Amino acid sequence: MTSLSASPESSTEHSTKLVYLFGDGRAEGGAGMRELLGGKGAGLSEMSSLGIPVPPGLTITTEVCSAFYANGRRYPDLLEEQVRAGISHVESIVGARFGDASNPLLVSVRSGARVSMPGMMDTVLNLGLNDETVQGLADSSGDERFAYDSYRRFVAMYGDVVLGLKRESDLDEDPFEAILERKKEAFGVQEDTDLSADALREVVAEYKAEILGKLGIEFPDDPWEQLWAAIGAVFESWESPRAIIYRDLNGYPSEWGTAVNVQAMVFGNLGDDCATGVAFTRNPKTGASGLFGEFLINAQGEDVVAGVRTPQPIRAVERADDGPPSMEEVQPAVYGELVTAAQLLENHFQDMQDIEFTVQRGKLWVLQTRNGKRTGPAMVRVAVDLVEQGLIDREEALRRQDPEQISELLHSVFAEGAAKDVITTGLPASPGAAVGKVVFSAEEAAEQAETGEDVILVRVETSPEDIQGMLAAQGILTARGGMTSHAAVVARGWGKCCVAGCGDLEIDYASGVFRIETESGVRTVHRGETISLNGTTGEVMLGAVALADPELPEDLTLLMTWADGARRLGVRANADTPEDASKAREFGAEGIGLCRTEHMFFGEDRILAVRQMILAENETGRREALKRILPMQRQDFEGILQAMEGLPVTIRLLDPPLHEFLPHGNEEIERVAKSLDVEPGRVSQRVQALQEFNPMLGHRGVRLAITYPEIYEVQTQALVEAACNLGARGVDVRPEIMIPLVGTAQELARLRERVATVAQRVISEHGSELEYTIGTMIELPRACMTAAEIAAHADFFSFGTNDLTQTTFGLSRDDAGRFLPDYITQKVLEKDPFVELDREGVGELMRLGIDRGRSVKPDLKLGICGEHGGDPSSIAFGHDVGLDYVSCSPYRVLAARLAAAQAALFEGS
Amino acid sequence: MTSLSASPESSTEHSTKLVYLFGDGRAEGGAGMRELLGGKGAGLSEMSSLGIPVPPGLTITTEVCSAFYANGRRYPDLLEEQVRAGISHVESIVGARFGDASNPLLVSVRSGARVSMPGMMDTVLNLGLNDETVQGLADSSGDERFAYDSYRRFVAMYGDVVLGLKRESDLDEDPFEAILERKKEAFGVQEDTDLSADALREVVAEYKAEILGKLGIEFPDDPWEQLWAAIGAVFESWESPRAIIYRDLNGYPSEWGTAVNVQAMVFGNLGDDCATGVAFTRNPKTGASGLFGEFLINAQGEDVVAGVRTPQPIRAVERADDGPPSMEEVQPAVYGELVTAAQLLENHFQDMQDIEFTVQRGKLWVLQTRNGKRTGPAMVRVAVDLVEQGLIDREEALRRQDPEQISELLHSVFAEGAAKDVITTGLPASPGAAVGKVVFSAEEAAEQAETGEDVILVRVETSPEDIQGMLAAQGILTARGGMTSHAAVVARGWGKCCVAGCGDLEIDYASGVFRIETESGVRTVHRGETISLNGTTGEVMLGAVALADPELPEDLTLLMTWADGARRLGVRANADTPEDASKAREFGAEGIGLCRTEHMFFGEDRILAVRQMILAENETGRREALKRILPMQRQDFEGILQAMEGLPVTIRLLDPPLHEFLPHGNEEIERVAKSLDVEPGRVSQRVQALQEFNPMLGHRGVRLAITYPEIYEVQTQALVEAACNLGARGVDVRPEIMIPLVGTAQELARLRERVATVAQRVISEHGSELEYTIGTMIELPRACMTAAEIAAHADFFSFGTNDLTQTTFGLSRDDAGRFLPDYITQKVLEKDPFVELDREGVGELMRLGIDRGRSVKPDLKLGICGEHGGDPSSIAFGHDVGLDYVSCSPYRVLAARLAAAQAALFEGS
Repeated sequence: MTSLSASPESSTEHSTKLVYLFGDGRAEGGAGMRELLGGKGAGLSEMSSLGIPVPPGLTITTEVCSAFYANGRRYPDLLEEQVRAGISHVESIVGARFGDASNPLLVSVRSGARVSMPGMMDTVLNLGLNDETVQGLADSSGDERFAYDSYRRFVAMYGDVVLGLKRESDLDEDPFEAILERKKEAFGVQEDTDLSADALREVVAEYKAEILGKLGIEFPDDPWEQLWAAIGAVFESWESPRAIIYRDLNGYPSEWGTAVNVQAMVFGNLGDDCATGVAFTRNPKTGASGLFGEFLINAQGEDVVAGVRTPQPIRAVERADDGPPSMEEVQPAVYGELVTAAQLLENHFQDMQDIEFTVQRGKLWVLQTRNGKRTGPAMVRVAVDLVEQGLIDREEALRRQDPEQISELLHSVFAEGAAKDVITTGLPASPGAAVGKVVFSAEEAAEQAETGEDVILVRVETSPEDIQGMLAAQGILTARGGMTSHAAVVARGWGKCCVAGCGDLEIDYASGVFRIETESGVRTVHRGETISLNGTTGEVMLGAVALADPELPEDLTLLMTWADGARRLGVRANADTPEDASKAREFGAEGIGLCRTEHMFFGEDRILAVRQMILAENETGRREALKRILPMQRQDFEGILQAMEGLPVTIRLLDPPLHEFLPHGNEEIERVAKSLDVEPGRVSQRVQALQEFNPMLGHRGVRLAITYPEIYEVQTQALVEAACNLGARGVDVRPEIMIPLVGTAQELARLRERVATVAQRVISEHGSELEYTIGTMIELPRACMTAAEIAAHADFFSFGTNDLTQTTFGLSRDDAGRFLPDYITQKVLEKDPFVELDREGVGELMRLGIDRGRSVKPDLKLGICGEHGGDPSSIAFGHDVGLDYVSCSPYRVLAARLAAAQAALFEGS
Repeated sequence: MTSLSASPESSTEHSTKLVYLFGDGRAEGGAGMRELLGGKGAGLSEMSSLGIPVPPGLTITTEVCSAFYANGRRYPDLLEEQVRAGISHVESIVGARFGDASNPLLVSVRSGARVSMPGMMDTVLNLGLNDETVQGLADSSGDERFAYDSYRRFVAMYGDVVLGLKRESDLDEDPFEAILERKKEAFGVQEDTDLSADALREVVAEYKAEILGKLGIEFPDDPWEQLWAAIGAVFESWESPRAIIYRDLNGYPSEWGTAVNVQAMVFGNLGDDCATGVAFTRNPKTGASGLFGEFLINAQGEDVVAGVRTPQPIRAVERADDGPPSMEEVQPAVYGELVTAAQLLENHFQDMQDIEFTVQRGKLWVLQTRNGKRTGPAMVRVAVDLVEQGLIDREEALRRQDPEQISELLHSVFAEGAAKDVITTGLPASPGAAVGKVVFSAEEAAEQAETGEDVILVRVETSPEDIQGMLAAQGILTARGGMTSHAAVVARGWGKCCVAGCGDLEIDYASGVFRIETESGVRTVHRGETISLNGTTGEVMLGAVALADPELPEDLTLLMTWADGARRLGVRANADTPEDASKAREFGAEGIGLCRTEHMFFGEDRILAVRQMILAENETGRREALKRILPMQRQDFEGILQAMEGLPVTIRLLDPPLHEFLPHGNEEIERVAKSLDVEPGRVSQRVQALQEFNPMLGHRGVRLAITYPEIYEVQTQALVEAACNLGARGVDVRPEIMIPLVGTAQELARLRERVATVAQRVISEHGSELEYTIGTMIELPRACMTAAEIAAHADFFSFGTNDLTQTTFGLSRDDAGRFLPDYITQKVLEKDPFVELDREGVGELMRLGIDRGRSVKPDLKLGICGEHGGDPSSIAFGHDVGLDYVSCSPYRVLAARLAAAQAALFEGS
């Protein structure tokens, strides 16, 4: 005890060092001091220590912030002295003086907490300007207009951030903006940039007058007064309402406090030996090594972003034939410095860097560096390259992949720079690009596609009846429905481009047109006109936009091998056809986790028999129709089992309510009646009778089989016959029979017995041997609660998280579009629970189900086969709760393999 | 150890006493020996010991059954000797001899397990008959026809049960029935009873020939051979498939075994000093003390049940003016014996008894006694009487109440002095009043009732097949049958009005009419005409007679006081109007647990404003319409709060999807459009837009308020204004505001804040003080899983078990009708989960929700407000899991108070 209290520094006592300096290749702090210096301060120190030329500056520590609040908003005594020493340090490096009329040092004052809190706290730029120093800036830059523009920006920013002159309500104008607008009117100019230096000088004066009039405060001319007030404002902003809310939402404690960074301003627009630019250490589109970027001579950073002037390339090899010269050519010395700095930074941060820089009078200043955003192919290539360079290991390479971007590698894209006429934008429901002629019905789509025409199917919304047409179309555009609407889900499953919920669309099926009201009037698109869809952005474009073929990056295969080595979770695919199954296998699926037999029922050749079954009056009638369906189903199953030879295939027996298979609309009803040789009245009567108030909660899944067991019996017969036939031909088949929508153990017990009886009969008739399992979807809360009882009758559980999410939330996926967006916008929900598995609710039920199921059957096989099976966060959850596999659409298999690897690598972190 | 193994009877060793005798006021067994003697055997012994004249007999123990199976279906050595001794004992008491040609003893052989397994095992009657003894029976009865009828029944029963000659499939005729039918044809008669003794003798011979032909077995003449085979058949029936299934379903172990009871047959049809009848120890309609029953002279038990002859009353006071004489008058000695026996039995069993008896040659034999079925008023009165007599205590009285029957006490009666056109009068078989359209079959009744039609089922007589139709009907009218006929017994069990044995009724099923011959001519009533039944007087009236509220039995208040003293659970009511609230209060509700504000929206005067709100394009439009709704809602709330002065009232803010308020059908749409002064197209467009695929899972409850918060704001304003207004007038108001369909804590947190803000504003505007709470419905599985987070923002949880059942099972209550009956029939589900709370699934979720909610807020108030709040079993569950209250419909409040008391009394049992 004595030795502890005798320790020279107790943890509650603060250090006397309140300010850390950086610049000129040195720094007092470093990357490890985020808590004390904040993220930005630590980063600037780190860069400076590396010898990167960052504009010099000083960081006031977070402890000062805490002390500031602890002592009634007063600074520690030592602070003034240390800040003054810091400014001297900056002055000596930059060779300018704070408040000097002829060569003034200007500084920025920025907040910097230990974590990034974007936009939550305040910043003041160009601090140090007044009516004298502005003249010095004008002289040294030789650009009076620039000097006064900087001055008026400083006054406005300071007036807003430090003095608190803001618009009074959201409806009011910004007071500074209003003055500027009036000035533009007075001078008869359109753009800010058209205002002269004199006009801007007037603006500055009017800004100050406004401040005096509204707040009764004389704008401070003294740079030191400006500085201290700005530092105070940054500390105050730590406890601003929006910062508090942000912290509360993210669970960051108030005690952390913020640091304040005071840094020399540097200017890229003081002459032709000045410049500003952005450089990536590698090509962010391809990942190819070598600097890649753009710069502008005699310009400010915002000029690059604004795109008003055409930037010049950094490297000579990037120069276009008729383009402007590169930095390598016109500023070779600075270019050399930049190359060195870039290499230093990439090696140090072990990743491709995105570097902002400014050249002031021939001197390179690095303003910021961060890991660079990159395309999917670049992501893969950079990671593999870095491993090969020995900078990172394989696990780190895997951790850095974005599964979404891997997924997008598989989709077709529009050619870069292709001209486009965007007429509206919907939800980016399924990524990719599509071009085709507009059709308004599934039949039309199928017919046109048959003749070799590329078509886009445009519907208010889609239903299972449209499947054939959707399959035939290049892309799908719907007016209603969200990211998990029928169209979206089906399209994603096929990797087909879909733009959904495009609310502007007014479809007139009768006239064969759709209309879009735009600002410039109504655009009308007729059947047969060509449109283009971008499923990645949601854009709908008139005419054919040029397409480009996606190419899978070479390194992807290698990366995926690493992923497979790292993951524990199996990855299967949801596939209903041999084609889908082959595709899934190609992408590395280790089995089929969900084969939906109902999709097979919609084929032209079989829907009639299905309808006959549904319209039957009794079991005899149903069995007769099923007899016709049997050989077709057997053929379906043979195809899939063959395609997945050696791998497990989970076949889900019929799930949806029967009325989904029935015709709608008088015309279709008559057609069906005719083909079935019954009265149309009979058909519409039956359609009527099968309508449900809440079909999602209705007569479907195992409930159909409790009332009409013959349906599952015949499906089982078809499956087992298919398996036996293949087995006889030496094919290794591994069928798993799945009973959907089980809520009680009794349901499964009964159906398991029926299914097993049929299977056993078929197997003995074939005189063959066949291993198969019988399991169930777990997609009802009750199934989770009674999982122990259910597990007694199940060889496996496959969590149907789509339906489980619907029932757990009491939320219809088809109807949620009307209010779920409000939920996300208002942050009542963080994420759409149909996209990312809700861990607290649905996930908690799954945990219970898993615990209870495995409590009676420790080796119960567990999987997930909802849409979530392809979502990285949900896959991580699946890993955590001990699932055996996830199953997702074939086009998500690569992403899922990667996400599964990441789940294993991030485990426990 | 030594002393234990030295014990003279080890538990695995069976007793050497295999047969227990009873009769003549003595018995070797008793009520405590159910395990050894079975329920029936123990009961017969008990009665005999009491001095009740039961036909003498013997019980072969269940241990013999076990030994029979353990030893390869052989009997223990000692059995034969003991059975022979038992038969001698019976012979000596009855004064007849087994197998004696002139005075034969006939016996019944019946199974009897330790619990009743109705219809599961077999019985043989009249055993001991053969071609010789039948003549003795003919002589002693003086009725040769009766003797041969008994003989042919015995041969058929023995042939079926013992020898196993059954119909081969459900489609075949019963082989014995077929022979009988052919015989009736041959003799040209319609009824079995029209066959002569000679014809029946031929039937017996043909039965035996059939047995020989089909089974190759000579029918045994030897009574002893008959007896041993019958005993064996009873033992065999213990392991019959249907018995095994029944045991499995009920969890009874095979080891229990069955006992066999061999008992002397007694006959009530051997002459005019014979009789048979049924007597209750009290009036089962009113509970008034004194024997109550009917008997028939020279008849068999089945004649009473069949209702072919009109029975005579037991007591003289029950004799109708022009009715037949009573037993008290015609058989006074036997009557005296019966009175004594009845009193003995009631005192012994401490409950009203339902006694079956036969008088053979002036000697009373009690065949069976059991606790008598009774009406609700009788149930209450008997229980209170027994407490006053000191036979049982209050707790026992409460335990014996059937909450369902208490509920039925509230069923309507006719308004006093209401005009009525009495067309005939039958027996007042089950009290109450009923008005409905005439139907003539159970199917019709069920169908019509389904469409919401009130119907009266009119039948010559009823049978178990008619149960569904009887249940569906408002009342039942039969032409034949007495107070204990099928119709009468069943209807009383349900508290449903029944007029039986209405002899004037001539029913013509084919034409769908019934006719009544009156003094003024024939009255004809057609299918579909409305009639009224008075089950208390037996009157049948043409047209609809006005109904009135019933009066509750005097003793009920006392009983309810006892119940209130015994229960822990509070009982509230669901009520949406001041009228319902007052009614609930009258029945003892301790508050309103659910006031559904949407029901208030349907009033003629307000639906227009509601529709205006829904049709509004934006918030401004909605607020305008809400402004019109506000004063009406305020008035609603004032009414309810006033009615419930001093008691809590839980107001649920708007819950259902908005489209429920919209008009449907073109006509209605046009009407609405006109009254709102908008285009009909606009209205139908909006109706269309608001349609949902699964409205149950759609935009409703708190979701409406997330998107349109103004709705809840205005409702809150109306409520708090109402409360403040009343408060200012000195009324003690206790509003509780309930937010429905919460699935995430965020939803409740936001709405709580909005609601509280409005409430606080109104309260300060009124300058008053008001205590109120804010809580939520828990009706989604996700709410249960995240109950800890939700509880942080809730003062109370009210479990909405209707919706919780729907979401937990994924089962729409509106659609379940198509398959739930199959689930119940096939026993996939034991009970309709919308009637009786599903403990394993829904209940388990509730437990989780309660645990988690109370883990952060130990004093969280908990209730239930679904339909289950009035269901006794669900109330017991609510008690077990620690709810504070249940809330149910006003008419279920009495039942709920009682059920809550029972839950407390049965706790831990």
